Amino acid sequence: MANIHVVLLLSPLLAFTFCCLTFAADPASLQDFCVAGFACLLIAVKLNGFACKNPAWVQANDFSFSGLHNPGNTGNPFGSAVTPVTVAQIPGLNTLGISMVRIDYAPWGVVSPHYHPRATEILTVIEGSLEVGFITSNPDNRLISKILQKGDVYVFPIGLVHFQRNIGHMNAVAISGLSSQNPGVSTIANVVFGSKPDISTDILAKAFQVDKNIVQQIQWRF
Amino acid sequence: MANIHVVLLLSPLLAFTFCCLTFAADPASLQDFCVAGFACLLIAVKLNGFACKNPAWVQANDFSFSGLHNPGNTGNPFGSAVTPVTVAQIPGLNTLGISMVRIDYAPWGVVSPHYHPRATEILTVIEGSLEVGFITSNPDNRLISKILQKGDVYVFPIGLVHFQRNIGHMNAVAISGLSSQNPGVSTIANVVFGSKPDISTDILAKAFQVDKNIVQQIQWRF
Amino acid sequence: MANIHVVLLLSPLLAFTFCCLTFAADPASLQDFCVAGFACLLIAVKLNGFACKNPAWVQANDFSFSGLHNPGNTGNPFGSAVTPVTVAQIPGLNTLGISMVRIDYAPWGVVSPHYHPRATEILTVIEGSLEVGFITSNPDNRLISKILQKGDVYVFPIGLVHFQRNIGHMNAVAISGLSSQNPGVSTIANVVFGSKPDISTDILAKAFQVDKNIVQQIQWRF
Amino acid sequence: MANIHVVLLLSPLLAFTFCCLTFAADPASLQDFCVAGFACLLIAVKLNGFACKNPAWVQANDFSFSGLHNPGNTGNPFGSAVTPVTVAQIPGLNTLGISMVRIDYAPWGVVSPHYHPRATEILTVIEGSLEVGFITSNPDNRLISKILQKGDVYVFPIGLVHFQRNIGHMNAVAISGLSSQNPGVSTIANVVFGSKPDISTDILAKAFQVDKNIVQQIQWRF
Amino acid sequence: MANIHVVLLLSPLLAFTFCCLTFAADPASLQDFCVAGFACLLIAVKLNGFACKNPAWVQANDFSFSGLHNPGNTGNPFGSAVTPVTVAQIPGLNTLGISMVRIDYAPWGVVSPHYHPRATEILTVIEGSLEVGFITSNPDNRLISKILQKGDVYVFPIGLVHFQRNIGHMNAVAISGLSSQNPGVSTIANVVFGSKPDISTDILAKAFQVDKNIVQQIQWRF
Amino acid sequence: MANIHVVLLLSPLLAFTFCCLTFAADPASLQDFCVAGFACLLIAVKLNGFACKNPAWVQANDFSFSGLHNPGNTGNPFGSAVTPVTVAQIPGLNTLGISMVRIDYAPWGVVSPHYHPRATEILTVIEGSLEVGFITSNPDNRLISKILQKGDVYVFPIGLVHFQRNIGHMNAVAISGLSSQNPGVSTIANVVFGSKPDISTDILAKAFQVDKNIVQQIQWRF
Repeated sequence: MANIHVVLLLSPLLAFTFCCLTFAADPASLQDFCVAGFACLLIAVKLNGFACKNPAWVQANDFSFSGLHNPGNTGNPFGSAVTPVTVAQIPGLNTLGISMVRIDYAPWGVVSPHYHPRATEILTVIEGSLEVGFITSNPDNRLISKILQKGDVYVFPIGLVHFQRNIGHMNAVAISGLSSQNPGVSTIANVVFGSKPDISTDILAKAFQVDKNIVQQIQWRF
Repeated sequence: MANIHVVLLLSPLLAFTFCCLTFAADPASLQDFCVAGFACLLIAVKLNGFACKNPAWVQANDFSFSGLHNPGNTGNPFGSAVTPVTVAQIPGLNTLGISMVRIDYAPWGVVSPHYHPRATEILTVIEGSLEVGFITSNPDNRLISKILQKGDVYVFPIGLVHFQRNIGHMNAVAISGLSSQNPGVSTIANVVFGSKPDISTDILAKAFQVDKNIVQQIQWRF
Repeated sequence: MANIHVVLLLSPLLAFTFCCLTFAADPASLQDFCVAGFACLLIAVKLNGFACKNPAWVQANDFSFSGLHNPGNTGNPFGSAVTPVTVAQIPGLNTLGISMVRIDYAPWGVVSPHYHPRATEILTVIEGSLEVGFITSNPDNRLISKILQKGDVYVFPIGLVHFQRNIGHMNAVAISGLSSQNPGVSTIANVVFGSKPDISTDILAKAFQVDKNIVQQIQWRF
Repeated sequence: MANIHVVLLLSPLLAFTFCCLTFAADPASLQDFCVAGFACLLIAVKLNGFACKNPAWVQANDFSFSGLHNPGNTGNPFGSAVTPVTVAQIPGLNTLGISMVRIDYAPWGVVSPHYHPRATEILTVIEGSLEVGFITSNPDNRLISKILQKGDVYVFPIGLVHFQRNIGHMNAVAISGLSSQNPGVSTIANVVFGSKPDISTDILAKAFQVDKNIVQQIQWRF
Repeated sequence: MANIHVVLLLSPLLAFTFCCLTFAADPASLQDFCVAGFACLLIAVKLNGFACKNPAWVQANDFSFSGLHNPGNTGNPFGSAVTPVTVAQIPGLNTLGISMVRIDYAPWGVVSPHYHPRATEILTVIEGSLEVGFITSNPDNRLISKILQKGDVYVFPIGLVHFQRNIGHMNAVAISGLSSQNPGVSTIANVVFGSKPDISTDILAKAFQVDKNIVQQIQWRF
Repeated sequence: MANIHVVLLLSPLLAFTFCCLTFAADPASLQDFCVAGFACLLIAVKLNGFACKNPAWVQANDFSFSGLHNPGNTGNPFGSAVTPVTVAQIPGLNTLGISMVRIDYAPWGVVSPHYHPRATEILTVIEGSLEVGFITSNPDNRLISKILQKGDVYVFPIGLVHFQRNIGHMNAVAISGLSSQNPGVSTIANVVFGSKPDISTDILAKAFQVDKNIVQQIQWRF
C-alpha cells in the first residue's frame, strides 16, 4: 500500500503544480471566453494565465464584481488607495486583455511613481482635481503632465513611469481602464529601495550619486 | 480506504478540469506542431486551445480527415449545410490558425447572416452560382455583395456579418478556408431571437422598433 | 503648365491617400507612444492605425480629453447615448489598445444588441440600475445576464452580442473601458435590417423564418 | 524649370518609396478591412503589408477573384502548377491572414519539397490521388506522410518542409487554404542550389557530404 | 483493487500527458516570468511552452547557465559545434522570446544551410573570420552574403535558409542571440535527405532534377 | 509661381512627416525582411517601426555592423558603457524582434537600475565577474541576484528593473541579446530624478518618504 500512498499524494500535487501555476500567454481569445478555474485562483491570485472552467458551468457571477462605488481607505503615508478589478476579482476577465481600477485620493494624496509592464492606463476624474504625468524613456526623459478636472481623461502609455496627485482640499476619485487583465505594478520606491533582500547600498549610492547613508535612510522606509 | 477512493475520484477529475477545459491562446506555434490530446477533444470539442499530445505518438492521421467530397444534408428550412474541418475534426490543427469548410446549398438555399468572431473566410465556388455579401460596421453599414460563378473567390473579413444564397435551380457547392483552427460562428437569428433563455421581448421590441408580438413570433422559430 | 498643376495636386493627394488611410496593425507598441498625426485624424477619423507624429512635437493635450462628466443626449427612440473616447478623440491612444466610453440611459432606455469586433468591454454603473447580458456563439447561444446596481462591474467578452437596459425610473450612467483604441461597433438591427443597400428581403425572410412584409417593416425603420 | 521637374518627379517617387514598399506587420485588423492600394500592388506585388485604400472607394471587386476553376499549366519538368490567390490577386486580403491556392498535377507530377515561412497549409483533394508528407525539424526529422484520395484533407504545419506527388495516371487537383495573405515559399532546390549568386560549391559539398561535381551538376539545373 | 491500480496508473499519466507536453503559445508574458517546471523539462526538453513553476519557489539558478566560455567539440564531418542556451537549459526563458548560442568552427568548418522556423538570429564574431549568407524566398532566391571579421555583426532573418563557414586557418567563435526561447532548427540536408523514413527517391530525383542514384548516395550519408 | 514653390516644399515634407515618423507595430514579419529606409533612419533614429526599403536595393551591409570588439568608454561616474546594435545601427533588424549590446565595466563599475519596456535581455560574461540582479513587481519585490563568472549566462525578464556591477579589480565585458529591435531603456534615476521638467519635489518627497532637500540633492545630479 505504500506505493499507492505516494502516488496518491503525488498525483494531485502534480496537478496543482501545473494547473494553478498558470499558463503564460493569451493575446487573443480562442473561444468565447475562458473563465479562470476557482482552485487556480485560490492558489495563484497574483498570476494571469489560468486554465479555463468548463463553459457549461460558467455563470453571470463569473463576469461580475460589486462595490466599486465604495471609497478605498486612504489612511496611509501616501494618502491614496487603489481598488483593483482584475482577473483576481473577476475570473471571466481571463484572456480578455482588460481590467479596471478605482483610485481614491485624500487631499494632497499621491499615487507614487510606478509603471505597468503589461498595460496602458486610461483614467477619468470622477471627483476633484488631479496633477498627473508620465516620463518618456531614455534619452529624453520628458515629463508630459497636466492638471485634470472632473470629466477629464488622460492616458499613461504602457511601460512608462507615471504618477497622480490630488491638488485640492477635498477627496478626489478616478476610474481607470487598463489594457491587460493582469496589468502588474512596479512602484519605483518599493522596487528600488524596498526589495527583499535589499539591493546593495554601494550600487544604489553610485546609481543615484548620493551618500550611502541617504540610500539607507530611504531603504529603512520601504 | 475511504480516503483513497475520494482522492482517486478527485485526482483524475482535477486533471480533466484543467486539461480538457483548454488553454486560451496561440497566435504563434512554439514547436513544430501541438496535436490536441484525445481525451481533451472528447470532452471539449467545441473549444480551441488544447494541451499537446506527446510528439513521439503523433501520426499522419492526426493531421488528416476524409469525406469532404460528400455533400451535406440540405433538407432543412434554410436549404444549406456546412461540413466543418476544424481542430475538432483534425487535432493536428491545434495552434495552427487555419481550418476549412465545405458548404452545400439546395436551389435557393441560404446560409443565414452570421459572423466569425475569430476568422476571415475565403470562399471559392466549386459548383453553381451564389449571391454573397458582407456588411461593414457602424456607422456606414455598407453591403458589399457580388454574384459568384464557378471558380470565383470572395473574402468575408473577420468579425463582419455575411451571408450566401444559391441563386440557381441546381445544387451549389463551395469550399472555404478560415483563418483560425476554431473560427466560431454567431448566427444572428439564433443569437438574438433564439438565445437560452430568451432576451426579454421588451428589449428586442425597442431594439428593432417593432411590436412585441412580432418579436415573439420570431422567437418561437428559434 | 497644366501638367505641372495636375502633378502638384496629385502628389500631396497621393500622400494623403496612404498616410491617413492608415496602417493596419499594432498589437504591441514599438516606441513609448505613437501619437496619430493631425491631418490623418481629420481625414480618417473612423480608422485606427495612424502614422506617428514626431515625438518632439507631442504634448500633454495629445493624451487628454475633456467633458466625460457631461450627460449625453438620450432623446432618441432607444433612450440611450454613447460618448466615446477613442483614438478619434485622443490621438495619443494610437497603438495603445484601450479606450473608454460614457453611456447615458433615460428611464427604460436600451443600448440595442451589438458587438465589438475588436474589443472586450468592462462596464461599471455610476448611477442607477441596469439589466445587462451577452449571448454566447453557436451552438449554445446562452444568454448570460444580470441586474447591476451602482458600483457593480460586468464584462462583455470580445465579439459577443450584448445589450443593456435601464430598469429604473431615473437616469442611469455607466463608464466602460474597451480593449482597443478603435473597438468598432456592429449594431445588429442596423447591420441586418439597415444596410446600404438593403440585404434582399428573400434572404432575410428565410433567415428569420418570417413573412417578407415583416422583414420590410423592420427595414423601413433602419 | 529644371528644378521643378526634378521635384515633381521626386515627390511622387518619394511617395511610392514608402507607400509601396510596405509596412511590416498585421496580425490583427484594426478596422473592418484595409484594402491594399492599387499603385502599391503594381509596384510591390511580392510584398504583403500595404497601406489601405480609402474605405469609401472600396468595392466588391476588391474582395474577389475569378478563374480558380481553370487548370494550371503542368507542362514543366515537375509536372505541377500552382495558381495563387493571395493579397497580390485580391487586395482586400491585406491584413486578414488567409489566402488560397489551386494546385494541378500531371500524372506523377511533383510539388517539390518547400516550406512556407509564414503559413500553415490545409489541403483538400478535389480530383485524383496524392502522396503527401512533411518533415519535422531537428533532431527527429520524422517524415509524416499519407496517401490521400478525393475528399481527403491534410495539414502542413507552418515552417515545415513538405511535398506532394500525384500517384495516379490521371490529372489531380487540390485546393488549399493558407494562414497568411502572403505565405511566402522557399523551394529547397531553388534556394540551396539555385540562389543568385550561387552558394560556394565547397560549402554545399561539405553540407551534403558529396563531391563538388555533383553539387555543380545540381546547380546547373537551377 | 484492480480498478484502483488502473486509476493510479492513469491519473499521473494523464497529468504528464498534458503537463509536460506543453502549451502552445506565448508571444507576450502575462506575469513577471513563468519558469518552466522541472518535471516538464525532464520529459519534454525539445518543446517550448511549459507550465509555470510556483513563483515563490523560483530562484536565481532558474535564470542562469554556466560554461558558455567552453569550446564545443568540432571533431565531426562539418567541423562545427553549436552550444545552445534555450529554455531547455534555462527554464526561466520560458515565454520570454529569446535565447543564445555559442558556435565553434574548426578551420574551414561549416554550419550547413538551415533555417529557424521561429527566430531571427543576430551573430557576432568573437574570434576568427567567417563567410556568412542567407537566401531570400521565391522567386528571387538572392544570396545576401558577407565576410565577417572579429567584432562584426550579421543578421539572419526568421525563416530564411542561412549558413556560415570559417574561412581562416584558426578556430573561429561566434555568439548569437535568437528571437525565441525555442527557435527550432531545420537543417536542409537532414530534413530532405535524412528524414525517417526517407522521402521516396522518385520524388527527390524529380525535385532536384538528378538521377536516383545520386539521391540515394546523399541519402546514405544522412 | 509662388504657390508652386510652397507646394513643392510641402509635398516632400508631408512625405517625411509620415514616412519617417514610423509605424507602430510588427510582432511578425510579413515578408522575408523589411529594411528600414535611410532617410527615415536619419530623421527618426530613436524610433522603431520604419517603412521598408525596396527589396531589390537591399544589400548585405543593410544587415551588418562592425566594431563590437572595441571597448566602450567607461570614463563616467558610473564606470560603465553600453554599445548598442539595434535597428538604429542595422536597418535590416527592422521588424525582426532582436538586437544585441556590448557592455563594458571599469572595476566596480555599475549599470544603474533600469528596465526595458519592450525586451527581455540574455547576458553572457565574456571577461571578468559581475553581480547581477532583477526585482519582481508588487507586492513581492523580490531581488533575484547572482554572482556571474566568465561564461555564465543570466536572464532579465521583460519590464523588470535590473542592474549589473563589476565586482573585480579588472575590466569586465558582457554581450547581451535583447528580444526587440528597439528595446528601449528607462533608467530609474534619470526618469524619476532627472526628467525634463522635474517632477515636483513635493510628489517625490512623499513618494520616497524623505525630506524635500534630499530629493533636490538627487535631482541636481540628473
